Amino acid sequence: MIALFTDFGLEGPYTGQVKAVLAQEAPGVAVIDLFADAPFARPQPCAYLLAAYALWFPPGTVVLAVVDPGVGSARAAAVVEADGRVYVGPDNGLFELVLRRAQAARCWRLTWRPQTLSASFHGRDLFAPAAARLARGEPPAALAKPAALGRYPEWPDELPQVVYIDRFGNAMTGLRAASLPSRARLDAAGRRLRRARTFSAVAPGAAFWYENANGLAEIAVNGGSAAAVLGLAVGDPVTASPGSGVRVAARPA
Amino acid sequence: MIALFTDFGLEGPYTGQVKAVLAQEAPGVAVIDLFADAPFARPQPCAYLLAAYALWFPPGTVVLAVVDPGVGSARAAAVVEADGRVYVGPDNGLFELVLRRAQAARCWRLTWRPQTLSASFHGRDLFAPAAARLARGEPPAALAKPAALGRYPEWPDELPQVVYIDRFGNAMTGLRAASLPSRARLDAAGRRLRRARTFSAVAPGAAFWYENANGLAEIAVNGGSAAAVLGLAVGDPVTASPGSGVRVAARPA
Amino acid sequence: MIALFTDFGLEGPYTGQVKAVLAQEAPGVAVIDLFADAPFARPQPCAYLLAAYALWFPPGTVVLAVVDPGVGSARAAAVVEADGRVYVGPDNGLFELVLRRAQAARCWRLTWRPQTLSASFHGRDLFAPAAARLARGEPPAALAKPAALGRYPEWPDELPQVVYIDRFGNAMTGLRAASLPSRARLDAAGRRLRRARTFSAVAPGAAFWYENANGLAEIAVNGGSAAAVLGLAVGDPVTASPGSGVRVAARPA
Repeated sequence: MIALFTDFGLEGPYTGQVKAVLAQEAPGVAVIDLFADAPFARPQPCAYLLAAYALWFPPGTVVLAVVDPGVGSARAAAVVEADGRVYVGPDNGLFELVLRRAQAARCWRLTWRPQTLSASFHGRDLFAPAAARLARGEPPAALAKPAALGRYPEWPDELPQVVYIDRFGNAMTGLRAASLPSRARLDAAGRRLRRARTFSAVAPGAAFWYENANGLAEIAVNGGSAAAVLGLAVGDPVTASPGSGVRVAARPA
Repeated sequence: MIALFTDFGLEGPYTGQVKAVLAQEAPGVAVIDLFADAPFARPQPCAYLLAAYALWFPPGTVVLAVVDPGVGSARAAAVVEADGRVYVGPDNGLFELVLRRAQAARCWRLTWRPQTLSASFHGRDLFAPAAARLARGEPPAALAKPAALGRYPEWPDELPQVVYIDRFGNAMTGLRAASLPSRARLDAAGRRLRRARTFSAVAPGAAFWYENANGLAEIAVNGGSAAAVLGLAVGDPVTASPGSGVRVAARPA
Repeated sequence: MIALFTDFGLEGPYTGQVKAVLAQEAPGVAVIDLFADAPFARPQPCAYLLAAYALWFPPGTVVLAVVDPGVGSARAAAVVEADGRVYVGPDNGLFELVLRRAQAARCWRLTWRPQTLSASFHGRDLFAPAAARLARGEPPAALAKPAALGRYPEWPDELPQVVYIDRFGNAMTGLRAASLPSRARLDAAGRRLRRARTFSAVAPGAAFWYENANGLAEIAVNGGSAAAVLGLAVGDPVTASPGSGVRVAARPA
């Protein structure tokens, strides 16, 4: 299985061309749209989102992750093997949290290059064919050489920010619910929010936070849009109180 | 074939995770996005939309239908077999019109449960694996026990409301065109609209109604958005005149 | 492989029903969403977009292209074989540039008809089953009779207009970059824009044009939306200066 995590969108030609490459180069492999609307050109919130969601996929999954504001520049291309999943994408911090949380991880710099490489669409021309080869069972070493990736020790283990707003207006944070005390409040947009188990546990119109189905603390309004009601956007601060247990000091990996 | 009818959206992680479950649990089965943007959290208009569109799929299709405002509450999970198609989703009225219009139908309450069940995403954790098992050929009785579903006798046979607005601004109603006299007018948003066969049969900018490709009466504007021009939204009343033949009294099934 | 080029959108029931037909009639054939949001009901800009993007697909691809404002009228249905790819869709100019640029092309009028044909959804009822048969290897002559298509000699070889705006606000033009001098400026929305190789080659916030990954001249803003910053929409004029080499006189094919 190949899971796609990008900011390409589903409409327009981008994700379709990526899938055309995968269909040709890895026929018969299931291709799943995990996120096609990850925060555009923002590797940091994407790193926390990716780490939370990739974990849900079974070992053996190849994750093609492309959020790549530096496309066409000298940024390197990365392959990561972490806890049985293989990731391919730009070396720009996107895999920082996957690496930091992994029990076991290895990193490579992608050295394979296609015959033709556009300046602006490495997702299609470079990363997709590499992902297809990895999904077919080629070892990373056939495409890449062992190398350290760029690391971001200043990034916290849990990101006290909104990292994604879904179509319902729910605001996912970069905080894993398991890192928070069970009675923690979240402060966002000048409001202090209590935890609930699920939407139907609060009154219509009430704002709250809950552990979403992939373990992230998520801010929601029952029957409404938290983003609209509270005025939240990706990158807005979200702090836990009291005693959140959020470690702000980074652990180098 | 598995057809998806949800309010999850295609972007974001929801439909992708459902498809990842289906790809693992029912490999090789075609999965079709029928509606990913069914009216959010509104089982009643969805019930009329689903009944009109599911009929188009061949017998043998498994329809995974999840519009589920009560997720996390005590609402039951349903399996329905109706005229050769199998439906799985929440027991909240979503299957009322499928049942009412079926020549032959049987109902079960889903008793199978996954090892881990999130509080907020039963589409992924409960309904998708159940749909996969049904698509692989497991009989409903292997997952579910015979049971009556909740019924909604007060819902009319034809719903005189807008039930869906598509990206072009066309407004589908819950009225089947075949239930209306051939010369019926539809009254909506203070306008009385005549029937036409298709868009190219009316002048540019003209509002009209027609029988859409799945049998519903649909309000449209040639070359424009009926929703914008007429100010229509899901739930708005649409009445037929004269002598619509719409039966408002419900037939219990 | 079947590539879909339509204005149907991915949400709602339209693309899903097309794919359901393809899954039944051409099981196992990969189906790729190339564009689901081609300019609505506008065959001319679509013709330039299609010609640029179809070329990227390998020979043997079947391109199902449906942008069809005349559905339900007397417009004919076309099959085109051009440089090893097969196209099926309405005969309304959509294939004009594919034909004009092809080394070798043949045209047919689709004579095959399904048992039931709705008035408004030929994409599902006529073109999709025809595409499936072509993808299964049936020759065009089994479905269609040789015939000239409608031609549009007044359309230029390169269209000096915006033909598509993507979700990032980048504005693709109907001008192929290879038709322009390397130092050409593009005039659009009262601004004169210079060429750059890629986004990261210009300052944040700067507007420029570049050759996109499918050869079209595309107007962009680094870190912003060209459509919003410059106020661009599909159909807006884009002219090259000086000495663009754009041939405005058409070559009949």
